[in-house]
Amino acid sequence: MLAIQPACEADVPQILRFIRELARYERLEHEVIATEADLRAALFGERPSAQALLARLEGVPVGFALYFQNFSTFTGRPGLYLEDLYVTPQARGRGIGRQLLRHLARVAIERRCARVDWAALAWNTSAIAFYRGLGAQPLEDWRVFRLTGAPLEQLAGPDGG
Amino acid sequence: MLAIQPACEADVPQILRFIRELARYERLEHEVIATEADLRAALFGERPSAQALLARLEGVPVGFALYFQNFSTFTGRPGLYLEDLYVTPQARGRGIGRQLLRHLARVAIERRCARVDWAALAWNTSAIAFYRGLGAQPLEDWRVFRLTGAPLEQLAGPDGG
Repeated sequence: MLAIQPACEADVPQILRFIRELARYERLEHEVIATEADLRAALFGERPSAQALLARLEGVPVGFALYFQNFSTFTGRPGLYLEDLYVTPQARGRGIGRQLLRHLARVAIERRCARVDWAALAWNTSAIAFYRGLGAQPLEDWRVFRLTGAPLEQLAGPDGG
Repeated sequence: MLAIQPACEADVPQILRFIRELARYERLEHEVIATEADLRAALFGERPSAQALLARLEGVPVGFALYFQNFSTFTGRPGLYLEDLYVTPQARGRGIGRQLLRHLARVAIERRCARVDWAALAWNTSAIAFYRGLGAQPLEDWRVFRLTGAPLEQLAGPDGG
């Protein structure tokens, strides 16, 4: 039986293992430097910045979704941003990803959110077909930019003006 | 003289006017349904979901930045997401956008954020050149998906499973 529940603090090590597995699948494992302490602070600290759902099949963890709330100035309403969605290779093909997204859609409706957004790697055609099948639309007109590392520090620094 | 400060509750009507001007510039004015009450709740309610900076030139509001905190599972650290950046046409060319982003970069460093992300319209080549000039990189490999409206409600509903 499949059960999807909000993660609790004891699930942090499992979620970090899943984050590493997801990064490996996305060929981005070198980017994972998060620690259990980081994740504990983000999910269960004084001012949590994210929330997670854990999927269990017959009691065994088989996937997770990690998300946070954002805000749309055009709609004037909050939204949800799905940072990570992962189902273990052995448990795929049973609709577990769909059930995780369905749970998230319910959270969105409960909170009067205008939308749920997330990013997919362009080469991950099977994930993209799955998302389109749910009625999600790619935001074709937009490009995402990121400022990080040295350019971020430089802009913030005394010579950044 | 240019001053950039966190917006206060009395700035809400001005910020909403700027949001509408920005939407008009982006040719998306039809999407703006936000009200002053929505914005007040988001920025100054019990559980604020976003924050705003207001730029004033000789005391006159000339632009704003609206942002919220997100979370990166790979770095294990929070980030900032810049939802809107706007400078009035009359005040452009004086580096006010840069100063708004610089202020945001300092907020990011103070909060130990890993990065600042935002989206730009693909046709807005002058904005994109400005962002690249700051050292921001486009995330070429990623596509953003959005689930909203009827498909979101359907997935959350009794027949969504």
